Amino acid sequence: MSEDKKTGRGRAEEWWQTSIIEMRPGVIRLRGYEIQDLIGRVSFPAMIWLMLRGELPSEEQAALLGIALGAAVDHGPQAPSIAIARMAATCGVGINNAMASAINVLGDVHGGAGEQALSFYGDIAAAMDGGTPLAQAVKARLDRFFAEEKGYVPGLGHRFHPVDPRAPRLIELTREFAARGVVSGRFADIAGAIEAEVAARKGKTIPLNIDGTTAVIYGELGFPPALTRGLFVLSRSVGILAHAWEQSQQGDRNKGPLPREWLWAYTGMPVRPFPDTE
Amino acid sequence: MSEDKKTGRGRAEEWWQTSIIEMRPGVIRLRGYEIQDLIGRVSFPAMIWLMLRGELPSEEQAALLGIALGAAVDHGPQAPSIAIARMAATCGVGINNAMASAINVLGDVHGGAGEQALSFYGDIAAAMDGGTPLAQAVKARLDRFFAEEKGYVPGLGHRFHPVDPRAPRLIELTREFAARGVVSGRFADIAGAIEAEVAARKGKTIPLNIDGTTAVIYGELGFPPALTRGLFVLSRSVGILAHAWEQSQQGDRNKGPLPREWLWAYTGMPVRPFPDTE
Amino acid sequence: MSEDKKTGRGRAEEWWQTSIIEMRPGVIRLRGYEIQDLIGRVSFPAMIWLMLRGELPSEEQAALLGIALGAAVDHGPQAPSIAIARMAATCGVGINNAMASAINVLGDVHGGAGEQALSFYGDIAAAMDGGTPLAQAVKARLDRFFAEEKGYVPGLGHRFHPVDPRAPRLIELTREFAARGVVSGRFADIAGAIEAEVAARKGKTIPLNIDGTTAVIYGELGFPPALTRGLFVLSRSVGILAHAWEQSQQGDRNKGPLPREWLWAYTGMPVRPFPDTE
Amino acid sequence: MSEDKKTGRGRAEEWWQTSIIEMRPGVIRLRGYEIQDLIGRVSFPAMIWLMLRGELPSEEQAALLGIALGAAVDHGPQAPSIAIARMAATCGVGINNAMASAINVLGDVHGGAGEQALSFYGDIAAAMDGGTPLAQAVKARLDRFFAEEKGYVPGLGHRFHPVDPRAPRLIELTREFAARGVVSGRFADIAGAIEAEVAARKGKTIPLNIDGTTAVIYGELGFPPALTRGLFVLSRSVGILAHAWEQSQQGDRNKGPLPREWLWAYTGMPVRPFPDTE
Repeated sequence: MSEDKKTGRGRAEEWWQTSIIEMRPGVIRLRGYEIQDLIGRVSFPAMIWLMLRGELPSEEQAALLGIALGAAVDHGPQAPSIAIARMAATCGVGINNAMASAINVLGDVHGGAGEQALSFYGDIAAAMDGGTPLAQAVKARLDRFFAEEKGYVPGLGHRFHPVDPRAPRLIELTREFAARGVVSGRFADIAGAIEAEVAARKGKTIPLNIDGTTAVIYGELGFPPALTRGLFVLSRSVGILAHAWEQSQQGDRNKGPLPREWLWAYTGMPVRPFPDTE
Repeated sequence: MSEDKKTGRGRAEEWWQTSIIEMRPGVIRLRGYEIQDLIGRVSFPAMIWLMLRGELPSEEQAALLGIALGAAVDHGPQAPSIAIARMAATCGVGINNAMASAINVLGDVHGGAGEQALSFYGDIAAAMDGGTPLAQAVKARLDRFFAEEKGYVPGLGHRFHPVDPRAPRLIELTREFAARGVVSGRFADIAGAIEAEVAARKGKTIPLNIDGTTAVIYGELGFPPALTRGLFVLSRSVGILAHAWEQSQQGDRNKGPLPREWLWAYTGMPVRPFPDTE
Repeated sequence: MSEDKKTGRGRAEEWWQTSIIEMRPGVIRLRGYEIQDLIGRVSFPAMIWLMLRGELPSEEQAALLGIALGAAVDHGPQAPSIAIARMAATCGVGINNAMASAINVLGDVHGGAGEQALSFYGDIAAAMDGGTPLAQAVKARLDRFFAEEKGYVPGLGHRFHPVDPRAPRLIELTREFAARGVVSGRFADIAGAIEAEVAARKGKTIPLNIDGTTAVIYGELGFPPALTRGLFVLSRSVGILAHAWEQSQQGDRNKGPLPREWLWAYTGMPVRPFPDTE
Repeated sequence: MSEDKKTGRGRAEEWWQTSIIEMRPGVIRLRGYEIQDLIGRVSFPAMIWLMLRGELPSEEQAALLGIALGAAVDHGPQAPSIAIARMAATCGVGINNAMASAINVLGDVHGGAGEQALSFYGDIAAAMDGGTPLAQAVKARLDRFFAEEKGYVPGLGHRFHPVDPRAPRLIELTREFAARGVVSGRFADIAGAIEAEVAARKGKTIPLNIDGTTAVIYGELGFPPALTRGLFVLSRSVGILAHAWEQSQQGDRNKGPLPREWLWAYTGMPVRPFPDTE
């Protein structure tokens, strides 16, 4: 490209590069496929996979992705994301705005547990790739975890559910897909070994939770840890939309967190006069 | 419930009501179904349907919903939503934050066309329910549209694509699903009649676009117009995530809209001294 | 500009036009003033005015703007904006993200009352410009309001405060600035006449609220109604930041709207088996 | 409080605690002051200070805070925050939504430099508190910086401005306030010593930038580093609002980053047929 061209339109179009989508008038291609060839032939999870990974999944891979996406859609209005969606829906903004305020809080604490779990599994998988046996790799990683950090092992335990009803079902399904050769089952093994080793150390089982088990599936399917958060956003967006929609049908205005006739506890300075400044 | 109870925990829990999700320790139910019964049995689009509508769709209905969701995932970095996702991803925020800034702009202009189209179709459907024949109902609604508003008929025409390649494919698929009895085909008829009548009036075809054709599908499936925007958010979130992710892999910082060495045109007051204020 | 230039860098820079800021290496000018001439010479409210209006205000005008901005900074954690800021601050996102989720809900219902009030006053002012006396213009506008709409007259009444303590003080200050010739006092007259006429019609005073009185000041200072919402965002951002910051110092994680040991009321379908689909 | 009370309204109100605002019907108190006592007596920057710090500043302290807030309001539409505000304003969302999408990207990279600079200064100040002389404390901190990190020293240098015109003016003003005893001048000394030491090491001056100099002021005034980001949000919100407002007056729809007739560069897979799946 000539220097002149590069300082003009060519340079500007270069500034916005993507390998995802190609367009010309009358033409839309995603990852090299004509959009009209994809529509009606690939499932919605397969479309998600293609967009994020660049290649089409098998039907079975797409089905397993859809299972993980479907499992985490909602955890009720005590989750900040859902509460925010519902409150926002009463403030006179669009449903997309209500969704945005809610999705925005799926941060390191509210939305990051799956990413942390998959990174944790990935460290163990890397040790195994280097020849360390599973049990030993798990022990070593947990030793490092307990030395460096406090709090819960990523992917284990739940504040509310003694056993999260989604977790054993997701592991069961992962095993079935592994038995059919769709995935290797390696991340299910790793997660199970972590759960067992922690139980042995603590003297009681702290079971895998939704983050730990969706991380197993995303790992089995080859997603990098950092995309796990994005997939959780796609999943939880469904619950966020459902709650924003339900709330918007009820006609409240400026819904606060507590019943309207209540207040909050004030813990600050007692009333005082404005200082004399002369 | 006693008055005493109502001023306490009971009143607070009443404040947050939902018919979507029921929870107890170890129990999560969506719309009355145990979550572990849903996982692995319903597709991701079927889960979306259940959450939004309260009942499970047939597999065919879920498939058609998935088709519409998959069709609108992306329209490239010249769409503000996609550009914002990419720029945000270079500013040191989480991928959920980048997605939120982007989803937030799917407002009346960027995300509302489907809603407007489905409302338009709905007006015609209501006239037909009252006994008016299709062609006459379409004529009457268009007469009103051209009398009241300027601009494009909702769902028709595209700034960039002479024919949007997604649109005919979506109509073709809707017809196939109607032929199998999954949907009635009524909204496809309405949209087709609008397109034909506008062509007759203008002397040239202004073809159905992606918003007009996804609105046909959402209408066929019984979604209300206002939910159309939310469904578009779920769909476009996929492209938003894919672009935010791709951009985050490239290591740019604070990506502006134009190449770094360019500026913008300043059209304001020429330089002037700070006014003497004595 | 040559056609060639217009398809190149010139065209791109034209695409991003502004009359607000001019930049060259080592040079930043706002509205024609060198930034280093502004810094230390104009107050923060004067800078806000210059950026929004294009010209510098007098010191007195800037002071009155600052009064309105300072008055509405907070209304406590039962306001959705403040509650959202606090919940977001516990989810592992940046303080800017917490602020964004909160500001995002200052929509038509939560943040739009000032805009509606100022538009209402503006209709009356326009009638007066056409020769209608104040009392008659107010009556006519209220007649139209009660004919067309239900609910509260914009700017009057408060769900919680019998008299909003901010309102009489803001009117008192506006009168003082009018007495000094800084503003005309016309919008204070209009708001007062509305309050009186509504009291006469209802048989009881529904006093001006914070939105109605800040709208008086913004109107006196010549701001258009649509900017009123933006000014409210600048104002409330202070409280949003203060609450997000206070919450972030407390170490909670994923703060829900109700105490952690409580739930919500489920009002939906009772538990049911997954349907037999064979 | 009785156990019964704690499980009722008292417990809920305890859940939302704040030391910022106290309210009863007809009463609003901020940090112990009646709101009507504050309105008209304290400047807008003083109100910001009170809300964030809990006590009133002196007039001079408030003035210096206002100077820092006013200095960083805008850096033009090539900044992602400003570009996003402008694009969002064309998408059919409220001005608060456009502001939120923009503020949301003031993250670690776009909005975090001041926080990093102030933390850096704070490390040096802490060493000085322990008895280390300024020059030695600066050398030691820079040694550590160059050993641990790559990239620019926080607060120094600018991609676009050889000398940022805001920086020397802000330092000059800080020195004036220090000469009057409003602040100590310690952070100005530290920043100057960093600039000098880096110049000595690199053989050329890399001058203090806007983030480094506003961090000096915020440090002089006693703000913790983490609040620096929040103060930058309050400041930049002014430019974000001004640009969103200017753009909204121009009537564009769905403004993309490049002129409408341009596209982007596609760098992905060439067109390929949908795979044969039999």
